[in-house]
Amino acid sequence: MQRQSSSKSLFWEEVVVGETVAFGRRPVSKEEIIEFASAFDPQPFHLDEEAARSSLIGRLCASGWHSCAIFMRMIVDGVLSSAAGLGSPGLDEVKWLKPVFPGDELTGRYTCTAKRVLRSRPEVGLCQILFEMLNQNGDVVMTWNAAQLIGLRTPESGR
Amino acid sequence: MQRQSSSKSLFWEEVVVGETVAFGRRPVSKEEIIEFASAFDPQPFHLDEEAARSSLIGRLCASGWHSCAIFMRMIVDGVLSSAAGLGSPGLDEVKWLKPVFPGDELTGRYTCTAKRVLRSRPEVGLCQILFEMLNQNGDVVMTWNAAQLIGLRTPESGR
Repeated sequence: MQRQSSSKSLFWEEVVVGETVAFGRRPVSKEEIIEFASAFDPQPFHLDEEAARSSLIGRLCASGWHSCAIFMRMIVDGVLSSAAGLGSPGLDEVKWLKPVFPGDELTGRYTCTAKRVLRSRPEVGLCQILFEMLNQNGDVVMTWNAAQLIGLRTPESGR
Repeated sequence: MQRQSSSKSLFWEEVVVGETVAFGRRPVSKEEIIEFASAFDPQPFHLDEEAARSSLIGRLCASGWHSCAIFMRMIVDGVLSSAAGLGSPGLDEVKWLKPVFPGDELTGRYTCTAKRVLRSRPEVGLCQILFEMLNQNGDVVMTWNAAQLIGLRTPESGR
């Protein structure tokens, strides 16, 4: 089952375990790949096409951390901006499955795999979320298995 | 056992399982926290001190992805710039244990927990690395359990 995310407010109660929601569309330019890498990940294969030819991938590609940063922005714009998001304690897994190249156009989808309410804070829920980033060919280029804190609309509903 | 990273070239053969190596020192400003968040993670508690007061942490703090990007730069400057780094397929875990606040001064350390040579590519090694980021109080603020590809000095040595 897949639906487009809507603009209405999303609380813990509305997160449906097993439902997949699509969001976002974001082109990636060579200039921003090089700009991000220059600031945060200046390895030759993220900076220079010529140097990238002798790398394992053989072409200039985005830093995995740039993919993460771009994806976070897509998630904020497409999901969290209309959700009661409260931050995250971390991720169980980040997989860079395929390179992100200049000119790629990225989309996202998420699936909540489990949810519960914090024992210590009955107004805060924790959702385990599989986030997937895809390119224009439908290849999954990155996955996250992330923990996301989200507010309850009605704290009593989590009991 | 702990040593400072040196400037000599680091290949797979030189990575010592169980040895902890310290690197880097990096102050974090409020301005860059807001700048990164504006681009990649515009949630209120990363953008605005006033809005952050009502968040779970209660103070403006850096996006976890900003911590990752800063840490990657520290790793490139302090470790990978003198190593035969070949990229990474991903991480088994990213933990944001404590917030990173404006004015914090961050340092890093890494410990290789396992290493092997790729069966398919005898010139490429894979190291499992625990990366830890600390603040000026010695608190571990973030950990990564990462896979790092690294070249062999002598491909035969991995057999």
